[in-house]
Amino acid sequence: MPKWKPKQTYRAIILIQDGVGDRPVPELKNHTPLEIANKPNMDYIASEGITGLMDPIEPGVRPGTDTGHIALFGYEPYKYYPGRGPLEAAGIGVKLRPGDIAIRCNIATVEERNGELIVIDRRAGRIKGEYVRELVRTLNEEIKEIDGVKIEFYPATEHRVVLVLRGKDLSPRISDSDPGTAMEGNPIKEVKPLDNTDEAKKTARIVNEVIKRTYQVLKDHPINNERIKEGLLPGNIIITRGAGMVPKDLVPFTHKFGVKGFVVAEEATVIGAARILGLEGIIPEGSTARLDTDLDSILRTALEAWDKGYDILYIHIKGPDIAGHDNDPWGKVKIIERIDEMLGKLLEKIPLENTIYALAADHSTPCTVRDHSGDSVPIAIAGPGVRRDHVRKYDEYSCMLGGLHRIRGVDLIKIVLNLMNKPLKWGA
Amino acid sequence: MPKWKPKQTYRAIILIQDGVGDRPVPELKNHTPLEIANKPNMDYIASEGITGLMDPIEPGVRPGTDTGHIALFGYEPYKYYPGRGPLEAAGIGVKLRPGDIAIRCNIATVEERNGELIVIDRRAGRIKGEYVRELVRTLNEEIKEIDGVKIEFYPATEHRVVLVLRGKDLSPRISDSDPGTAMEGNPIKEVKPLDNTDEAKKTARIVNEVIKRTYQVLKDHPINNERIKEGLLPGNIIITRGAGMVPKDLVPFTHKFGVKGFVVAEEATVIGAARILGLEGIIPEGSTARLDTDLDSILRTALEAWDKGYDILYIHIKGPDIAGHDNDPWGKVKIIERIDEMLGKLLEKIPLENTIYALAADHSTPCTVRDHSGDSVPIAIAGPGVRRDHVRKYDEYSCMLGGLHRIRGVDLIKIVLNLMNKPLKWGA
Repeated sequence: MPKWKPKQTYRAIILIQDGVGDRPVPELKNHTPLEIANKPNMDYIASEGITGLMDPIEPGVRPGTDTGHIALFGYEPYKYYPGRGPLEAAGIGVKLRPGDIAIRCNIATVEERNGELIVIDRRAGRIKGEYVRELVRTLNEEIKEIDGVKIEFYPATEHRVVLVLRGKDLSPRISDSDPGTAMEGNPIKEVKPLDNTDEAKKTARIVNEVIKRTYQVLKDHPINNERIKEGLLPGNIIITRGAGMVPKDLVPFTHKFGVKGFVVAEEATVIGAARILGLEGIIPEGSTARLDTDLDSILRTALEAWDKGYDILYIHIKGPDIAGHDNDPWGKVKIIERIDEMLGKLLEKIPLENTIYALAADHSTPCTVRDHSGDSVPIAIAGPGVRRDHVRKYDEYSCMLGGLHRIRGVDLIKIVLNLMNKPLKWGA
Repeated sequence: MPKWKPKQTYRAIILIQDGVGDRPVPELKNHTPLEIANKPNMDYIASEGITGLMDPIEPGVRPGTDTGHIALFGYEPYKYYPGRGPLEAAGIGVKLRPGDIAIRCNIATVEERNGELIVIDRRAGRIKGEYVRELVRTLNEEIKEIDGVKIEFYPATEHRVVLVLRGKDLSPRISDSDPGTAMEGNPIKEVKPLDNTDEAKKTARIVNEVIKRTYQVLKDHPINNERIKEGLLPGNIIITRGAGMVPKDLVPFTHKFGVKGFVVAEEATVIGAARILGLEGIIPEGSTARLDTDLDSILRTALEAWDKGYDILYIHIKGPDIAGHDNDPWGKVKIIERIDEMLGKLLEKIPLENTIYALAADHSTPCTVRDHSGDSVPIAIAGPGVRRDHVRKYDEYSCMLGGLHRIRGVDLIKIVLNLMNKPLKWGA
């Protein structure tokens, strides 16, 4: 039983095993990977602590990695999901503010025919990042503002670009100009407002204008002239999809919860979500987001972050989700066992006696489903002052009987903050 | 097992042990006071009934006594918390209506220097209530209305006064004029709107005007001239803090739930919350709101209220919270045992055979935390028709396994009403 001192506050570590929840798997004699895996350290957390089931979004609803993490970071996912554009933008390090619109773009190839712009290749022949960076530099020089709205372009991976609109009275409720791969050979689509508000109409108008101007700026760009000479497709326009907005009423993590959080994660989406919400984060070197990831490196990165004094440290490991998508139950068992070893080393350095530990997941990825599902996930929380329940193992079945019963994803941080003796308060 | 008759309705008693929930306590060998206490009557309720855990506000969030009780009285605490001003006003018997603004005030001493009013003493030398009542009478004669808003002053305990504003288009979103004890010797603060609404601006303007006028009315008041002669500080102004409003859409208890409720409580805050919500209430004679309180007197007051035919009787006992704040686990054990004796006498007079009993708490006050915490509290409900679960004891650990699982504070009254066979209905 961990010890504690009166009025002392504690720090917390939340270990997120992406997609770890599962259903009975035939290859495992209808057990789940968590039931089969040898994982003494996770079971130690369960034994010393309190357990239960958690619906990351709400019962039965299938979360994305993005929405699942938004909930685990303590934000109501239905209210604070910003959409793909802002997540991709924040993931590549763009600093976004509440009210900013971010849109995922491709550098594409179009051809003028009868006054229409026909999409020849959505990725401009998978144009390399070095060219894209050059083209984006020119775009930022030539297109800075339209109708008082600031326009910014950021190169993402390969042919991908992020477009940010910053200004008053904007809305993410606009359609895509990207016609999709199946519709290559057709004209670029006009961006339309998706509702009847002035904001959506204004934003659609500005994005259409941005697209037109990118063609004017890029069609005779030296890089494209060079590419055409070499028989390559020119990157002569940007096409847009997945517009999103950082919610205007977003209160940053530190202000909302009164603690500083850090996220060590294997995926840009998780880091992007974290940054939009005001958490800092990093993808460790050696992280592959697959079953072969370097867990020692992840551990090292986590320990370095811990030494900087953050109040809550999230550690995200992708492997279990990958094994679920691949219907690879034994691979899932194996990565769980490797994560458990990492957890053991973490517990040696940062003991349960003076730290709150929580085991969580952003969603289930059952092997038989080969995708995320709406099944709840097991949780366990241990540390000083925790009311220990009778559950001794960390898995979907044992945690059904736990003292936390059934909570929602957004509840987790509030429960952890309470055990850190830094609860949110309501009333005198 | 209690007996029941078909279609019969029942009345209910809800016993609220303030702050009774706890965490493992080292002095109690890591048990909780509820686990250690000898409390056959509470365990009888648990044995005969259904048990579970309850989050008074929501999981992990730390309630105040005020918000915890607002939830137990069946009102969503985030929506219906009126703030400190109305609670204090209602606690001293001021009848408030939806939309009324109530502000906590002190009679204070100010001195004019270079046209500024400097706060010399926030409490006018702890001026006695007999003088305050006299000064308040003059204020009510001289300041009755400003810009169509009715102005009322009420004497509270000692130097405290409550200011009520009644009129259209008012807002509680205004700042304090009271500079706080640490800032005595500085000018009185101007009241400012805390948001950009016309309502907040209007309310701030009126309160500033009220404050100015109280100085005009009080500075040469005969009582103050007398006090100055005697070398005492004059009570020559009111200073304001903690403005709040009774929510405009508040539906009174009897109308909302279709039953009449009465509250026997040890604290003015609880009575104040009850009255604002439309419940009647009383603080029993002999109540000290401490460990030495007169539980026989509380029992007598409760039985008298019961005889008047109220449908739901709440009995609030403060002691367990006090022991938690003082980190006095054995004191907490003792008061729980005394409350249990009182419960035994109550059960003799009003047997479980024809009454719904619920054991509840407004929050946990763990000894190790010495403050309210966001931990859930154990609940037990017994009486005719209750689906009895397997739990036989009333404490944080036993009730984890109860058939009610985990509910919120606002759920309790609905569950009790259902067992009274007077459920809220939705649908045909």
